[in-house]
Amino acid sequence: MEYQFSDRVRSLKPSAIREILKNSSDPSVIPLSAGNPAPDAFPYDAVSALSADLLKNAPIDALQYGVTEGYAPLRKHLMEYMGKKHQVGTENDDILITSGAQQVMDLLTKTLLNEGDTVLCEAPSFIGSLNTFRSYRAKLVGIPMEEDGIDTKKLEEALNTQPNVKYLYTIPNFQNPSGITMSLEKRKKVYELCRDHGVVILEDNPYGDLRVSGEDVPSIKSLDREGVVVYAGTFSKVISPGMRVGYAIGPKEVIQKMVVCKQGEDVHSNMWAQIVCHRFMTEYDYEAHLERLRGIYRRKSQLLLSAMERYLKPLGITWHSFEGGLFAWCTLPDGVDMLDFVKKATENKVCVVPGTAFLTDESEPCQSFRINFSTPTDEQLTEGIRLLAKTYEEMTK
Amino acid sequence: MEYQFSDRVRSLKPSAIREILKNSSDPSVIPLSAGNPAPDAFPYDAVSALSADLLKNAPIDALQYGVTEGYAPLRKHLMEYMGKKHQVGTENDDILITSGAQQVMDLLTKTLLNEGDTVLCEAPSFIGSLNTFRSYRAKLVGIPMEEDGIDTKKLEEALNTQPNVKYLYTIPNFQNPSGITMSLEKRKKVYELCRDHGVVILEDNPYGDLRVSGEDVPSIKSLDREGVVVYAGTFSKVISPGMRVGYAIGPKEVIQKMVVCKQGEDVHSNMWAQIVCHRFMTEYDYEAHLERLRGIYRRKSQLLLSAMERYLKPLGITWHSFEGGLFAWCTLPDGVDMLDFVKKATENKVCVVPGTAFLTDESEPCQSFRINFSTPTDEQLTEGIRLLAKTYEEMTK
Repeated sequence: MEYQFSDRVRSLKPSAIREILKNSSDPSVIPLSAGNPAPDAFPYDAVSALSADLLKNAPIDALQYGVTEGYAPLRKHLMEYMGKKHQVGTENDDILITSGAQQVMDLLTKTLLNEGDTVLCEAPSFIGSLNTFRSYRAKLVGIPMEEDGIDTKKLEEALNTQPNVKYLYTIPNFQNPSGITMSLEKRKKVYELCRDHGVVILEDNPYGDLRVSGEDVPSIKSLDREGVVVYAGTFSKVISPGMRVGYAIGPKEVIQKMVVCKQGEDVHSNMWAQIVCHRFMTEYDYEAHLERLRGIYRRKSQLLLSAMERYLKPLGITWHSFEGGLFAWCTLPDGVDMLDFVKKATENKVCVVPGTAFLTDESEPCQSFRINFSTPTDEQLTEGIRLLAKTYEEMTK
Repeated sequence: MEYQFSDRVRSLKPSAIREILKNSSDPSVIPLSAGNPAPDAFPYDAVSALSADLLKNAPIDALQYGVTEGYAPLRKHLMEYMGKKHQVGTENDDILITSGAQQVMDLLTKTLLNEGDTVLCEAPSFIGSLNTFRSYRAKLVGIPMEEDGIDTKKLEEALNTQPNVKYLYTIPNFQNPSGITMSLEKRKKVYELCRDHGVVILEDNPYGDLRVSGEDVPSIKSLDREGVVVYAGTFSKVISPGMRVGYAIGPKEVIQKMVVCKQGEDVHSNMWAQIVCHRFMTEYDYEAHLERLRGIYRRKSQLLLSAMERYLKPLGITWHSFEGGLFAWCTLPDGVDMLDFVKKATENKVCVVPGTAFLTDESEPCQSFRINFSTPTDEQLTEGIRLLAKTYEEMTK
């Protein structure tokens, strides 16, 4: 039979990048292209003990239908915790538990966006979210990044000139892929600009707890007293991504609509995972756990920095400094074709993601690529960087 | 701030039924309105043992990111199982694991439907699915039900006259809410009609394993050699709904697009649940488990039938006969206002769902209501039916 697909699905073009990365699943290739948390960061013993207790003493809570809004004790605790620790959420806000933070991007888009409406995003930005916005036929407008975050002059220009802007998508902490953290001054400016233009801010903060140096910067949501910001949080990087538990904290009116949309998508999120996350936060020393994670990532990031200093710096390959997260954003000297470099690196058995993958328009020129330091082992990390240098030398000798 | 919601969200009207049912969460009200599996149907001990073993011996499988298509061993086993036992799936088909069967409805709609396109469905039909279709601004066209399933003459008429029909949504076994099972003759006719019109069939089969009398009827998918049918299955009624594990088996070309859409929605489904379902199917006597479930529901349904015979039949309240599933569909004599009856029943502490909830147009006349017999205890079930009779008598005396 011949199928008549929807316009939104037909407009999703196959990516040129997929072709380049198709060998990345080969186990002999060092994976600097992924975004998986380090395996030793998972709280195995706690999850195992909590799960056993739950399935013994309250199995029906884990196995029966739940409500769309999420497991009530987790919702309550998260609102209190995020309010107390991060000043996130007001009495006019509500919380929705989602199937990973990706679903926050999906549900907010479904709630706000008509086909052809504009989404402003950082350029570069997280490819997973960009693809979600594309699946609703959003017009994506990228705003360039500076060392201290989004270019607020260009943002203001876009707010003044782009039609039907529904929201700004930003990852203020250790942005994926650039690693950049937005300064407090810019956060205030971004908040004021969007508020004054009646544009929602979708603040995605998957890496906020993974700061390895420097001082925490207050979230944009913590500045929000006027219902401008929908904040996306997740347990994917701090407990487990396989559990698929994220959440949105935002204005009640918006969250209510997102609940209706979620009901039609998956009714509610996995109950076992919601309960285990709640009990892990409340029955274990959650802050000590986060500190342990930061220790793991601090060590890994220093390992990466040493290898880059040793192998890449002498070649003129540069990178953005970063204070946390899982990624480094490297830039090749002019005159070397970045896509060709990434392709040849894969042939040399190391895989990174070409920077064009993170642009609103993949065909724009780009000399950058993204390195992940959480997935590879220590040995793979150092060897991977050495192989990148080798690739560059082969191309330029 | 004032929010500009999307057209699709603004068009979701608050339901009149919600108002009627708003007291149904009161614990003193007997819940004949739900659709939860019976609590004693969950395989608690097996889930608990499998989960403990998994988190001890392969915790990374449960906690790390997985692939969007689903846990490979579960996909493989389900394809073999469904092929061997139910003749579902060909070499041109593929399988996608979803976050409950609800996500199959969502992803197929996203894949096929433009705003304003037509979805044909049985009238009445499952409200959860209808709302999913509505969230994509589908034009819903209901085809009346007969004792042996959808009216195929009316279906043919609709296929000939309705514009842009993308798929037919059907629940052929123990339909929710009517309880009707489609005859094999009609299944063949429905398949041929849709194939000849190039219209996909979305076959939703959540209750197929819960037959309590009569003989199994082959699924529409088992007749499919031309890529017409997308089959939606789920573990919600046979293992646990709180786990949120469903699946779609359909033409490779369609499943591939659904995978892309799922990636943007929730990346992948909860890994723990997928692995536990796989191991439960392969390491336990799954057929004996299903037989045990059928025993539970057979007893419950007979209890309901006895109570209806005793309390409702003398009053002229009738019901469709049913051979499985979780629901009975009752019809009031003319002259009694159905919505008023449901409202007064709730005041009398028993809650059922008004039939209008299951129509494409809630304002159409309807004398029917739906009773669920899996959620209430035995005592609640009998007492609930008595209270319905009492309500009717109070209204007509």
